[in-house]
Amino acid sequence: MSELAEVMKHRRSANKFIPDVHISRHELDEIFELVKYSPSASNLQHAHYVVVQDEEKKQQLHEAAYKQYKVLTSSAVLVVLGHMDAHLNAPQIYEGLLHLGVLNQQEYDQTVAMAQAPYKQQGEPFQHDEAIRNASLSAMSFMLAAKDKGWDTCPMIGFDPEAVKQVLSIPDRYVPVLMITLGKEDTNSQRVRGYRKPVGEFVSYEQF
Amino acid sequence: MSELAEVMKHRRSANKFIPDVHISRHELDEIFELVKYSPSASNLQHAHYVVVQDEEKKQQLHEAAYKQYKVLTSSAVLVVLGHMDAHLNAPQIYEGLLHLGVLNQQEYDQTVAMAQAPYKQQGEPFQHDEAIRNASLSAMSFMLAAKDKGWDTCPMIGFDPEAVKQVLSIPDRYVPVLMITLGKEDTNSQRVRGYRKPVGEFVSYEQF
Repeated sequence: MSELAEVMKHRRSANKFIPDVHISRHELDEIFELVKYSPSASNLQHAHYVVVQDEEKKQQLHEAAYKQYKVLTSSAVLVVLGHMDAHLNAPQIYEGLLHLGVLNQQEYDQTVAMAQAPYKQQGEPFQHDEAIRNASLSAMSFMLAAKDKGWDTCPMIGFDPEAVKQVLSIPDRYVPVLMITLGKEDTNSQRVRGYRKPVGEFVSYEQF
Repeated sequence: MSELAEVMKHRRSANKFIPDVHISRHELDEIFELVKYSPSASNLQHAHYVVVQDEEKKQQLHEAAYKQYKVLTSSAVLVVLGHMDAHLNAPQIYEGLLHLGVLNQQEYDQTVAMAQAPYKQQGEPFQHDEAIRNASLSAMSFMLAAKDKGWDTCPMIGFDPEAVKQVLSIPDRYVPVLMITLGKEDTNSQRVRGYRKPVGEFVSYEQF
């Protein structure tokens, strides 16, 4: 395990993976055990991951990702989904607090109603944005937690979402938010680190 | 500085801040120096932050955030924006690689064209989603980097985006993606940690 600042600086989007490297489900689950602490609006936990290691399925995702080579050589492909109906899970999410006595019945009902209100009031566009927003918060945690355990990742948006949904039997109310390829980077083909804007260019004080 | 796993486990959305705690620009900039390493699609760096510490502006944001108390007691309010025209910055982002000789002119032109293509082809809806997606990746880095330096945060989506844009003179092509309040949490009023789904409930293998 490493210090957070080191992990953040050393995480880079992998350019090329060393082929035929295996990651076990145990290791993946260890990463997810950290990812679960990511925040989400009203703790609704919109993010869902589909992990693909099967060679045939990877071939199909490779097609759906416009034949980007790293899909094939990665140790696992993760499709990060955002659930557009996450607010419907509010009763279950808060049930524990009711049973623990942290919330009484009235407070519980109110908490559930408040968690659901913006989704009900603002409808589809907000549900869609929330799916992307909360799954992306989770995805960043995933990439850092993976790096901390020695795995390189590359977040990818270049894929046909409908094709991905079909390959992985993803229900309609889940938005494919990101594809993350994971593996051990072949650092021989590593390029110079991407330019980053200086802080003064992406931070304003008091107004834009 | 702490180990990443510890930071992830101990970062919690702050419930209540200790009032009148100041954070210096120097400390904020130290956090942003880590945040800048967050990944973004084609390295376009869609995220922009507006940091608010001025009491009058905080009052206005408090109104825009439906009078959520922690806006007032926080040491700083950050409005995380996503730029819908980030792809137009591709020529500048890749210029360094051209000047360094990493890319020749033809490769540079091709790289810029490829970075811009999905935004041009898929238009507004994709530009909107990308603004949210990439700013959210950055926001997660911010909350972890802040925690590493001893600052608590709370990501908030309960605000009127148009009112926030007006208060902070935010241009039309920037989407308010999240509001993050930052400060020192008053742990006396800390509630039990929010329930998290077990890994098996948010991770599927090979198909949904």
